[in-house]
Amino acid sequence: MPSRLIRALPFLEWAREYRRDTLVSDLVAAVVVTIMLVPQSLAYAMLAGLPPHIGLYASILPLVAYALFGTSRALAVGPVAVVSLMTATAVGGIAATGTEDYLAAAIVLAMESGVILIALGVLRLGFLANFLSHSVISGFITASGILIATSQLKHLFGVRTKGDTMPDLVGQLVSSIPDINWITLVIGVLATGFLFWVRKQLKPLLRRIGLGPLAADIVAKTGPVVAVIVSIVAVAGLSLDAEGVKVVGAIPGGLPPMGLPLLNPDLWIDLFVPALLISIIGFVESISVAQTFAAKRRQRVDANSELVGLGAANVASSLTGGFPVTGGFSRSVVNFDAGAQTPMAGVFTAVGILVTTLFLSHLFAKLPQAVLAATIIVAVLSLVDLGAVKRTWDYSKADAVAMAVTIVVVLFVGVEIGVVAGVAVSLALFLFRTSRPHMAIVGRVPGTEHFRNVERHKVVESEAVLTVRVDESLYFANARFLEDRIYDLVASRAEVKHVVLMCSAVNMIDASALESLEAIAERLKAAGVKFHLSEVKGPVMDRLKRTHFLDHLTGEVFLSQQAAMRALDPGTCGPGPAAEARLVS
Amino acid sequence: MPSRLIRALPFLEWAREYRRDTLVSDLVAAVVVTIMLVPQSLAYAMLAGLPPHIGLYASILPLVAYALFGTSRALAVGPVAVVSLMTATAVGGIAATGTEDYLAAAIVLAMESGVILIALGVLRLGFLANFLSHSVISGFITASGILIATSQLKHLFGVRTKGDTMPDLVGQLVSSIPDINWITLVIGVLATGFLFWVRKQLKPLLRRIGLGPLAADIVAKTGPVVAVIVSIVAVAGLSLDAEGVKVVGAIPGGLPPMGLPLLNPDLWIDLFVPALLISIIGFVESISVAQTFAAKRRQRVDANSELVGLGAANVASSLTGGFPVTGGFSRSVVNFDAGAQTPMAGVFTAVGILVTTLFLSHLFAKLPQAVLAATIIVAVLSLVDLGAVKRTWDYSKADAVAMAVTIVVVLFVGVEIGVVAGVAVSLALFLFRTSRPHMAIVGRVPGTEHFRNVERHKVVESEAVLTVRVDESLYFANARFLEDRIYDLVASRAEVKHVVLMCSAVNMIDASALESLEAIAERLKAAGVKFHLSEVKGPVMDRLKRTHFLDHLTGEVFLSQQAAMRALDPGTCGPGPAAEARLVS
Repeated sequence: MPSRLIRALPFLEWAREYRRDTLVSDLVAAVVVTIMLVPQSLAYAMLAGLPPHIGLYASILPLVAYALFGTSRALAVGPVAVVSLMTATAVGGIAATGTEDYLAAAIVLAMESGVILIALGVLRLGFLANFLSHSVISGFITASGILIATSQLKHLFGVRTKGDTMPDLVGQLVSSIPDINWITLVIGVLATGFLFWVRKQLKPLLRRIGLGPLAADIVAKTGPVVAVIVSIVAVAGLSLDAEGVKVVGAIPGGLPPMGLPLLNPDLWIDLFVPALLISIIGFVESISVAQTFAAKRRQRVDANSELVGLGAANVASSLTGGFPVTGGFSRSVVNFDAGAQTPMAGVFTAVGILVTTLFLSHLFAKLPQAVLAATIIVAVLSLVDLGAVKRTWDYSKADAVAMAVTIVVVLFVGVEIGVVAGVAVSLALFLFRTSRPHMAIVGRVPGTEHFRNVERHKVVESEAVLTVRVDESLYFANARFLEDRIYDLVASRAEVKHVVLMCSAVNMIDASALESLEAIAERLKAAGVKFHLSEVKGPVMDRLKRTHFLDHLTGEVFLSQQAAMRALDPGTCGPGPAAEARLVS
Repeated sequence: MPSRLIRALPFLEWAREYRRDTLVSDLVAAVVVTIMLVPQSLAYAMLAGLPPHIGLYASILPLVAYALFGTSRALAVGPVAVVSLMTATAVGGIAATGTEDYLAAAIVLAMESGVILIALGVLRLGFLANFLSHSVISGFITASGILIATSQLKHLFGVRTKGDTMPDLVGQLVSSIPDINWITLVIGVLATGFLFWVRKQLKPLLRRIGLGPLAADIVAKTGPVVAVIVSIVAVAGLSLDAEGVKVVGAIPGGLPPMGLPLLNPDLWIDLFVPALLISIIGFVESISVAQTFAAKRRQRVDANSELVGLGAANVASSLTGGFPVTGGFSRSVVNFDAGAQTPMAGVFTAVGILVTTLFLSHLFAKLPQAVLAATIIVAVLSLVDLGAVKRTWDYSKADAVAMAVTIVVVLFVGVEIGVVAGVAVSLALFLFRTSRPHMAIVGRVPGTEHFRNVERHKVVESEAVLTVRVDESLYFANARFLEDRIYDLVASRAEVKHVVLMCSAVNMIDASALESLEAIAERLKAAGVKFHLSEVKGPVMDRLKRTHFLDHLTGEVFLSQQAAMRALDPGTCGPGPAAEARLVS
């Protein structure tokens, strides 16, 4: 089969080797994921500010679309917490929650995200996601988790609040304390406590009573379903909804509505930046998960195919009245652990959600919103890792700063601007670092041809030859710094006759740096000092040869630092390869 | 004298060794520069959209302020073409040319630039200017030159036009052709032709008739003064101003008006971005010139002191009713060549301009604007170098792209946005390049301990050991790329038992890259391949030691690549330093 066809329609690859045992594995995984996905999809729709059943709509056709176009065999696509929060932020700026316009904007957002993802994939721009560092992503997830958990407290309190930042949310919660519905709060606290207990303690308990690790894990993951069922029974039995406990309410049964999103250009323009950020964040979350699984099973995921797969899922979501989706972490882990072999598991899950929508959705009418909020709070708090800032600080201050900036800006200014600020800070710190490169004077490690920093190693140095290793590519941002440092070093060493710039770490010399090197050669020449290069890499040398630089260079370009020292100050070289060669012959 | 005091007041350094011969040199230079500066200051004020005498105001106190606070001994401060153009663009967006508000805004702009420059200097942020690459500056100067020359054609035509971009300027000029004042055009064309002739041909001519090179140069530089005098005489004698030839008109004699700029917060906010860009561009132009001269005389200029010096000059300009100033290229060259020894030359120049303002300014009333325009056109066209794009392309495509983007955006969109676009493109291309680093499989150059690319050099390779040199720091943008490449390389070599990552060009490993290295080690372990590092630099190793990475590493960290090969595959190592050591002992 031509590989181009497989790249366009990745399901062709696994479909032709689909066997009965794969079918059974996929079916089992689908049943487990469906049970987990039903409460999640309702809850994340609520988090996005949408009627809960929209979450079901976003969990049917998108899964089928991803199965056709995606490459990961275990990724479970659907509504996820972070993307739902971003949807609420984006759409909340355009329409009031609960209105027709709000839903219509969410549907447009899904379509726009889908189109952006497909475009990025087709244009092979998946590498752009690499500019989101792990630190920024980690900070973003932590801050989003805190923000989401806080935003859900209103459902536990049974009050109405609105806000996109921590100060807003906390302020409104505090001022709404007098309005608390105590029955709702009891339900919410009980549900939250139960879910935390299930997550932390049930699994070890089940293991102790003899369940296998996989079975224990799967049972523990059904905790939310138990909470949902118990709370529905309690509300219905005690008519608690008449006491002011907010419930999901009547859910329209039947198929999701098919239709094109609004084609209002202003709306599309307003939603462009949020859609772009949702696309990239969703993609990064998804590809991280997909790559982890692929590595475990020695499979590959192709970033650009993944973009197309996720794009198709979002387009499908939009066409069936849904909101933005992506590959979720916890659900994918369950899918993988439950044995999903191919994306067919996703198709079966879609069938499960469809059946739920058609025949079971009336059962959720009495489900308290506080229980859905509890499932969200427990899920997202497990993602919060504030200790990561401290751990990262110990290894890399720049990473820790980028992480902290992301967290603070997401919490106190806004979700989207937080990501942008994190990326900007991490890039700025990288650029700043490369603008003042580490430079070392090097000497020869005795008994070798290896040259290292004189301050860190016992090395043989030369009086007349100053060798400086610059640990960075030379480009405009550090060209002047290099000039200054070399002039300073030479000025303080009257006996120096040769300066060798050891270029083993120089991966590029741009036009500005080339001018600086010319200036250095010129200036050292006036001081009677020759300027040489050593260990210039092939690609760098190729480019230097296309200029007049080598004609103006007062010294030479040496293949190795050892060759430079042999030519310029043989006394410091030891017997060297000449002796070594004699020994061989 | 304490060095901190000298850093704050750099004139203390040269003032205490000021002697009579220095005085004479400075006086001579000042006379020459004054003669050059008078028409330039009138012309650049006109370019900035201001009454010509404002140019004189901006050429008195600013020069004294720079002499006190600046560090360059030859820099000639005052109005310059590019900054005047940027002033016209910035202020033109706020007030109509010729109004009181326009002048007031220009004065605020000078103060704001001055404050920004001083702040950058005090905060030691001079390094920020390094992020403007030579290519962006060169493109900016070329495009500004074209734009300025085109904007001055209206004065040659004797028509009124307005516009900030090439399409606007050219369109308006073409439609104004019917309104051309032919006498003005004749004067303008004659002046332009004369000035070009002076610039290109007079100097060689003077040399041929026996003048020394310096004298010839100085005489050639007085061309504009000759054009000014001749045209004043012609206009006054023939009453050409009555024929519609626009002249400078009555210039208020007397001292420049002293006063604080407007303290209107909205105006300051509106002008902030232009003021910041004018500050940075002006600083870059100035520091380049200053460093060139300092290098010639073995003096140093300190970037942060220069910022303070230029800031003081702009504050002084604002307080005396002037507009933004900086160190100009051509005038500084004249100052330096005419023998200026200290910034005292600038003080004498200021006295010269003051005398002109007080006693000679009425002489300029009949000076045709077309002649001033001609001096501007001839000056700026010498800065235009479109061929630089082609030359740069041959060496560095990224630099050429950044240059071309800067030129196109400055010409067709706007001056400020052009600089920003150029910087953004050059940084983006640098980041893009570092995100897909050059990687090479290396082997040993026979007879040495030096390891080079197998595709470029005849080297000894090992079957079992794959050594990959990655030519870039490892950070978030390239971490995933590295992972993919290593997996691909290992997948295609079944016989490989060890992978050595040669880190001689790795200047940093950030937190994201560290996770990737852990993932690589983990994955190779599963495939039965050990993962080693070699030639890890001191600073990088220090940080790795603070993590658990080295505990999880399946292989070792070798000081040198040769040590790695000796341990992993001694057969490929030659006799090696062991034999060498025996030979020595």
